[in-house]
Amino acid sequence: MAEPLLGHLDPAFLAILDRVQGRLRQAFRTVHPLTLPISGTGSAGMEACLVNLLEPGDAAVIGVNGAFGERMCAMVERIGARPVRVEAPWGETIPPERVVVALERHRPRLVGLVHAETSTGVAQPVVEIAAAARALGVLSVVDCVTSLGGMEVKVDEWGIDAAYSGTQKCLSCPPGLAPLTFAPAALERLASRKTPVSSWYLDLSLIGRYFGTERVYHHTAPISMIFALEAALGEVLEEGLEARFARHLAAHRALVAGLEALGFRFPVAVEHRLPMLNAVIPPFPDEKLARKELLDRFGIEVGGGLGPLAGRIWRIGLMGTNATLDVVDRLLAALRTLV
Amino acid sequence: MAEPLLGHLDPAFLAILDRVQGRLRQAFRTVHPLTLPISGTGSAGMEACLVNLLEPGDAAVIGVNGAFGERMCAMVERIGARPVRVEAPWGETIPPERVVVALERHRPRLVGLVHAETSTGVAQPVVEIAAAARALGVLSVVDCVTSLGGMEVKVDEWGIDAAYSGTQKCLSCPPGLAPLTFAPAALERLASRKTPVSSWYLDLSLIGRYFGTERVYHHTAPISMIFALEAALGEVLEEGLEARFARHLAAHRALVAGLEALGFRFPVAVEHRLPMLNAVIPPFPDEKLARKELLDRFGIEVGGGLGPLAGRIWRIGLMGTNATLDVVDRLLAALRTLV
Repeated sequence: MAEPLLGHLDPAFLAILDRVQGRLRQAFRTVHPLTLPISGTGSAGMEACLVNLLEPGDAAVIGVNGAFGERMCAMVERIGARPVRVEAPWGETIPPERVVVALERHRPRLVGLVHAETSTGVAQPVVEIAAAARALGVLSVVDCVTSLGGMEVKVDEWGIDAAYSGTQKCLSCPPGLAPLTFAPAALERLASRKTPVSSWYLDLSLIGRYFGTERVYHHTAPISMIFALEAALGEVLEEGLEARFARHLAAHRALVAGLEALGFRFPVAVEHRLPMLNAVIPPFPDEKLARKELLDRFGIEVGGGLGPLAGRIWRIGLMGTNATLDVVDRLLAALRTLV
Repeated sequence: MAEPLLGHLDPAFLAILDRVQGRLRQAFRTVHPLTLPISGTGSAGMEACLVNLLEPGDAAVIGVNGAFGERMCAMVERIGARPVRVEAPWGETIPPERVVVALERHRPRLVGLVHAETSTGVAQPVVEIAAAARALGVLSVVDCVTSLGGMEVKVDEWGIDAAYSGTQKCLSCPPGLAPLTFAPAALERLASRKTPVSSWYLDLSLIGRYFGTERVYHHTAPISMIFALEAALGEVLEEGLEARFARHLAAHRALVAGLEALGFRFPVAVEHRLPMLNAVIPPFPDEKLARKELLDRFGIEVGGGLGPLAGRIWRIGLMGTNATLDVVDRLLAALRTLV
């Protein structure tokens, strides 16, 4: 990010953009041409998917078992479309068969799922739902903000039509961009809209002309953020996706063993736990004070609970460069002084 | 930007946010509490103003004499509102009295003006229009992307209700944020909407709760960009706004003298020329080749014309740290080898 700036139409910068797009395709495991970073944080990626694919009056089946499923519903409503909620309690997965039943019944324009619910630490099964959606002609939109780069995301093999992520989770890049990929079916949907996309800034039919071969100016790209993403993706791919996933899993397992010994409990079922976002019930009478001490005395920031889990859980991130046994040991050592 | 990251709810980061907001108020010359950087580039600031203030069916009088007035109209239409265009040829100002007549006739929700049209190098008079708008109960929205930090922008004294900018022009910060300020009248309008803001990501009633005293999470702030903006605004205010404006003007005058001697012509009337964005008619038979040589041989990037001015003008930026006599001399020396 400290590199001198380039103009957003400078050939040297356009070569970097090409490289970023290529690396994003590798990270998403896709060959989709429209794979690019949206100029905003992860929520801008969510909004970009929904505003480009939905028109007023459309139905959208949304899996809701945490804050980010709720956010999808809020965005769907603002578009004038109709969210059909398939819910599960915060901390549990949504059974895929319940989502498929809703798809068969409502025949919506799309189904929205949060692959890694950052608010609860739950990994949502998406493969079966994406396959059923494709068979029904329903587009699948998957939030990979916290999963990309930290656990398997296979856009093409799983048949996902639109996916987005953020840069600041398992890609270990500062926040500020939202990687996004659109399959041909999503692009066809975009091309066949009857109404314009409600957001000019996020209109992928315009943005795609800057990222494509035409290089038509749409908005000024956030140059330094693109530099950062190029470098971060370079590190991800140099390590290798499989090795990176294994590292996240190893750090997660060490954390589980260490925390359970300290009296922490893990509310999420073992088979649905996210390796990079650990929801835990802390053994402290005043969880907020304990988090403050962690930050003030040890420089370690741990997330609090959101929504119905506020004050009840901690959310411990082990993402990207932080997913190491050393980091786990440092956290455990700090916690031992507090229990 | 190379500083280690902080969490977006870390007290140390929130103190930086407070400082950024205070410095933005100084730059905009306003006391409005809702003054903050939108998490996107300049066009996201434009869209934020329009989506928060307009509802479907509203009329919006837009001054159109270049690419960015056109962009405002495009955004107004996507909201389902109705743009009332008051036009002038690209390269000329829009006579304020014509805008005022349109305000009296259409009684729109807002009037949108581009203070510094980056596509043409024209400074649009806004003071008289803002005053007339306020008298008629019409909100004024002013694009200060290229003017902020390079020429006078007095939000409170001029009675502007909403203004936005970009970071990469005269603030000399990388692109990626859109400074924005909303006057109480704009906030009242936001509070009295009958329909939700069409964009969740840009909804200022939600964003304002993160930037206000509540610190309610909305979306993850682009941390490194905020660091950069804090530093850039520090430099702007350390130099002093008046000194900075004088420096831009001095560089502009040196450029005019030097370019006229080389056979360049300035199509914009003297009294309406922007100091930081110089529209010039180059004396080269192949203007595109000359720009390529400037970039390849001298590392100097000059903008081409847009829209009806494509292939006819160059747009020479002298913005922020680049608005110096040394930079002008370097450009003139390079151009002398080409003419």
